[in-house]
Amino acid sequence: MTDTVTDATLAPVLDRIDADLDASTDRLLNLLRIPSISTDRAYKADCDRAADWLVADLQSIGFDTQKHATTGHPMVVAHSGGDGPNILFYGHYDVQPVDPLNLWDRDPFDPQLEDTPKGRVIRGRGASDDKGQLMTFIEACRAWKAVHGTLPANITIFCEGEEESGSPSLIPFLKDNADILKADIALICDTGLYGDSTPAIITQLRGLLGEELTIHGPSKDLHSGMYGGIAMNPARVLAKVIASLHDDTGRITVPGFYDGVPELSNELAASWDDLKFDAEAFLGEVGLKLPAGEQGRRPLEMIWSRPTCEVNGMTAGYTGDGFKTVLPAEARAKISFRLVGTQDPHAIRESFRKMVRDMIPTDCRVEFHSHGASAAGQMATTHPAFAQARTALSDEWPNAAAYVGCGGSIPIAAYFKQYLDMDAMLIGFGKDDDQIHSPNEKYDLSSFHKGTRSWARILHAMTA
Amino acid sequence: MTDTVTDATLAPVLDRIDADLDASTDRLLNLLRIPSISTDRAYKADCDRAADWLVADLQSIGFDTQKHATTGHPMVVAHSGGDGPNILFYGHYDVQPVDPLNLWDRDPFDPQLEDTPKGRVIRGRGASDDKGQLMTFIEACRAWKAVHGTLPANITIFCEGEEESGSPSLIPFLKDNADILKADIALICDTGLYGDSTPAIITQLRGLLGEELTIHGPSKDLHSGMYGGIAMNPARVLAKVIASLHDDTGRITVPGFYDGVPELSNELAASWDDLKFDAEAFLGEVGLKLPAGEQGRRPLEMIWSRPTCEVNGMTAGYTGDGFKTVLPAEARAKISFRLVGTQDPHAIRESFRKMVRDMIPTDCRVEFHSHGASAAGQMATTHPAFAQARTALSDEWPNAAAYVGCGGSIPIAAYFKQYLDMDAMLIGFGKDDDQIHSPNEKYDLSSFHKGTRSWARILHAMTA
Repeated sequence: MTDTVTDATLAPVLDRIDADLDASTDRLLNLLRIPSISTDRAYKADCDRAADWLVADLQSIGFDTQKHATTGHPMVVAHSGGDGPNILFYGHYDVQPVDPLNLWDRDPFDPQLEDTPKGRVIRGRGASDDKGQLMTFIEACRAWKAVHGTLPANITIFCEGEEESGSPSLIPFLKDNADILKADIALICDTGLYGDSTPAIITQLRGLLGEELTIHGPSKDLHSGMYGGIAMNPARVLAKVIASLHDDTGRITVPGFYDGVPELSNELAASWDDLKFDAEAFLGEVGLKLPAGEQGRRPLEMIWSRPTCEVNGMTAGYTGDGFKTVLPAEARAKISFRLVGTQDPHAIRESFRKMVRDMIPTDCRVEFHSHGASAAGQMATTHPAFAQARTALSDEWPNAAAYVGCGGSIPIAAYFKQYLDMDAMLIGFGKDDDQIHSPNEKYDLSSFHKGTRSWARILHAMTA
Repeated sequence: MTDTVTDATLAPVLDRIDADLDASTDRLLNLLRIPSISTDRAYKADCDRAADWLVADLQSIGFDTQKHATTGHPMVVAHSGGDGPNILFYGHYDVQPVDPLNLWDRDPFDPQLEDTPKGRVIRGRGASDDKGQLMTFIEACRAWKAVHGTLPANITIFCEGEEESGSPSLIPFLKDNADILKADIALICDTGLYGDSTPAIITQLRGLLGEELTIHGPSKDLHSGMYGGIAMNPARVLAKVIASLHDDTGRITVPGFYDGVPELSNELAASWDDLKFDAEAFLGEVGLKLPAGEQGRRPLEMIWSRPTCEVNGMTAGYTGDGFKTVLPAEARAKISFRLVGTQDPHAIRESFRKMVRDMIPTDCRVEFHSHGASAAGQMATTHPAFAQARTALSDEWPNAAAYVGCGGSIPIAAYFKQYLDMDAMLIGFGKDDDQIHSPNEKYDLSSFHKGTRSWARILHAMTA
């Protein structure tokens, strides 16, 4: 902590957070034990259990809490009631799948504290994304309530269970429940620090378009001895489609793809250059060296402000041990586009599908399956909450808070604006090496602890 | 049957085969119940059981039979002893994997007789490839023995259990056991009829080169929000590699690939044209229309005399239900080349690997794993056994026997020549719609029955 807090309202809350750290960590470990993988139907009951856990926990600190059924996984909405500004907090209790399981050093749903060379971490699926982050805010509320009996604002906590699987129930739920969700501002904790000790407030988010395509060839798998050379092989067609999505300079070839992609402003370019992003170190962490995006772009542009097209998965034919001389009947790929500026996800989806269809030979057909489409988002940094939070964060952390871009896609921010006319502020305490969506996900204990303290400070700054 | 057999030696054997059909079918069903998938280590004990089954069956008809351990699956060698020419028969008791299991209409290892619009079939993995074919010869021997007490030749039956997984133990075994295997000629039953009623003797076989490549990128799976656009994606690299293996005319681009590929002789071209191969019907059976091989080649060339390059499997990233925005750490493919003429599999392997390595960007590395390499084979059609067998087959089937090419790769024929200086004759009774290597594999009961009768006729023709 960089300063001694003397404020009579804030200081005892921070003390309480410090004193309660072991108990709050135990609570998080309990939540992490629930395998709430939303994309896999086999875990539907577990998602429900995670929602129930939150309901019980929020009720225990005096929130009026309801579990709302959807056609997918339930939503949890909790109201503190009380005076002060109306604040909505959003987090998600669902997690990513855990495969490849053999790359985990332990059961992803048997979380534990681990001492590492870089400090203590909470290890387990969801530790960082997003259960640990979600709990920083709830723990801040718990401490405040314990010290002062009431919260300094009229707070609604809104937890979703479908964030990792395209949020199919979210928009209908926002539309139907605007009255219980709408607030002066939304706080979202699903992002990271900039580096290890610089807190960050997000100014822009990339959108996300997810597409799955299946190329069908022969009516069944064929023997390559009998049919090899004469039968159309859909794996070859898929490879050709994927290979054609980028040109030699790394630009994406989908027609019209770059419509609405803005150039970086001089101001933002200068501010990002000030961050002295070390691309070599960033990539070195994951065994890489060279920025692989569009030629001639800053590395920070590649991850924050340029659109992308990535293969997230592909499969065809025999992929087990050994060899099988089969010509596959079909080949499948999951492809995602990260979008920026005013790129239109629906127009891009249509253009992508047309481009693929045009490449499919007579003896194949292609089937598409959508996995969501959200536009990029620009945050309302002139809202007073931004300056208040920036000061509060700068007080907690060694370095002053930075305004940064975010390569990820958190469509909820855009939805809040679109459906509830509510600005959102994204602040999170994850680190680049948290391995979210990967084996051995972790959340630094310091992220959890200082994150909780940060929210107490932000609540104080927004309500003082 | 096209004629009434009056030969005093042959006629009772054929009668015995007819009378014993139910029992011989039951024996085959018993062998088919053993899931001897050689490529998957999980079925090691089952491969061993299949070998034991053959040992017991061959001993029951008086063969002096041994199971020979190898570092992989065992070999079975059985000697009839006795007078007459020395004949080796080869078959394999191992089978292909059964995935995708959901496309089977029944348990692949719970075989049964089924009535279909095209006649009675034996349904199950291995029914055609190769247990059913293998048993045609054994049943012919059993009937002959039952009728005459001795066989008309000194017969050795040699069964392998690694044919579907690259035969790693075969060459060492041939070298070490030349004395017990060498014969005047080898008979191999692992091929098909030409069409439904024309028996076929193979004059040329394609070779097979199997390569597996793994392209490694980042040290672990990454979040495409955080790393998308800046990190090298090995799935994209793999797609580019695969897409580059053929040019727009369907020719394979591996440097030097076509060295040793002969043009079809005018004589063979004329004889193949006489077969009036119906490419549209052949492809129509599997839901396709257009020959997809090299432009300007006859369809029969594409499957018999032209070399190929096929993707047999590929995988990267998340391939399960739903969507996962992951950048995969690695991408894998299994690729096979069918070879003809004097193409050198080892030279092609090196050229292929060099071509791939040259395409791998700085931030990736590629690993190769070999799945066998065998050259194409040309049969010794001037050996007197060929004419004898052709007459015998023509007597059994509605149409006269044809000399045909074969798109598959049965390296054993080349190995017999190379290591035992023994010519081989390949005759089989499979049909194009047997779905070998695919779900719902079957063997026509008529293939099994007339196949058994064919071997009795051939043994008679070779020893009369």
